[in-house]
Amino acid sequence: MNIETYLKSRQSAVISCRPEDSVISAATLLSDNKIGAMPVLDAQDRLVGLLSERDIVRGLATPNADILHMLVSELMSANPVTCNRGDTMERAMKLMNRHRFRHMPVMDGDVLFGMLSIRDALEDMVHEKELEANVMRDISIASRSR
Amino acid sequence: MNIETYLKSRQSAVISCRPEDSVISAATLLSDNKIGAMPVLDAQDRLVGLLSERDIVRGLATPNADILHMLVSELMSANPVTCNRGDTMERAMKLMNRHRFRHMPVMDGDVLFGMLSIRDALEDMVHEKELEANVMRDISIASRSR
Repeated sequence: MNIETYLKSRQSAVISCRPEDSVISAATLLSDNKIGAMPVLDAQDRLVGLLSERDIVRGLATPNADILHMLVSELMSANPVTCNRGDTMERAMKLMNRHRFRHMPVMDGDVLFGMLSIRDALEDMVHEKELEANVMRDISIASRSR
Repeated sequence: MNIETYLKSRQSAVISCRPEDSVISAATLLSDNKIGAMPVLDAQDRLVGLLSERDIVRGLATPNADILHMLVSELMSANPVTCNRGDTMERAMKLMNRHRFRHMPVMDGDVLFGMLSIRDALEDMVHEKELEANVMRDISIASRSR
């Protein structure tokens, strides 16, 4: 399945924040929406980073960092690896596995199209593998009964 | 594959914390070890909770909560759903999917045996499905060439 088809089937809105937002407000957005990461967009809606729960926990763990007054720009991962809406879910999963990411922005050219999590990509792959195994089983049964 | 076999093949130590540890020290443990959650054990090493990056971000997002002076016991999820070391990886994945968990403690009776993440469980399932599809493909080719 390609990523666009998958994301359209899921129909979830993309939650995002700005680099100049406070980490506290970003944490509230992540927590309220039960998501693990979100894209960071500048005033022209260009993707400039990704902010994850992991980035925030790292900020809290940094000695002498004043998390209560930090901005998203200080903790986000800048220039995140992205994929394109026309890519396959399998390619997205392999990218996330290779880099040990759990979230990846999906682009339509220069414009953010959606967000993908490793849970999405792996679930889709499990589903595809089940379909493949079923087809092979059918072929095997059909050829034995000839 | 059963969970015990999988965890032994991975050979990673279980990182844990105590309910009376500070959230800051727990965040440091999670961050330094690049893990998303850890079991919380009492002084008798009994499992009493699970502390995840998500719990910590929720704490930071709670109005008037003083995250810098909070204890693990105030943010952990008490009485987490667990699985047993003899369960299959597939059962673990289904449990994590149903409850939308990303981490689950694995027990040996009353004693903590290890930790499983949804990445582990789904990766294992993708691997099993690939093996199954390969076997079915071989059967199909063999039966056609008779």
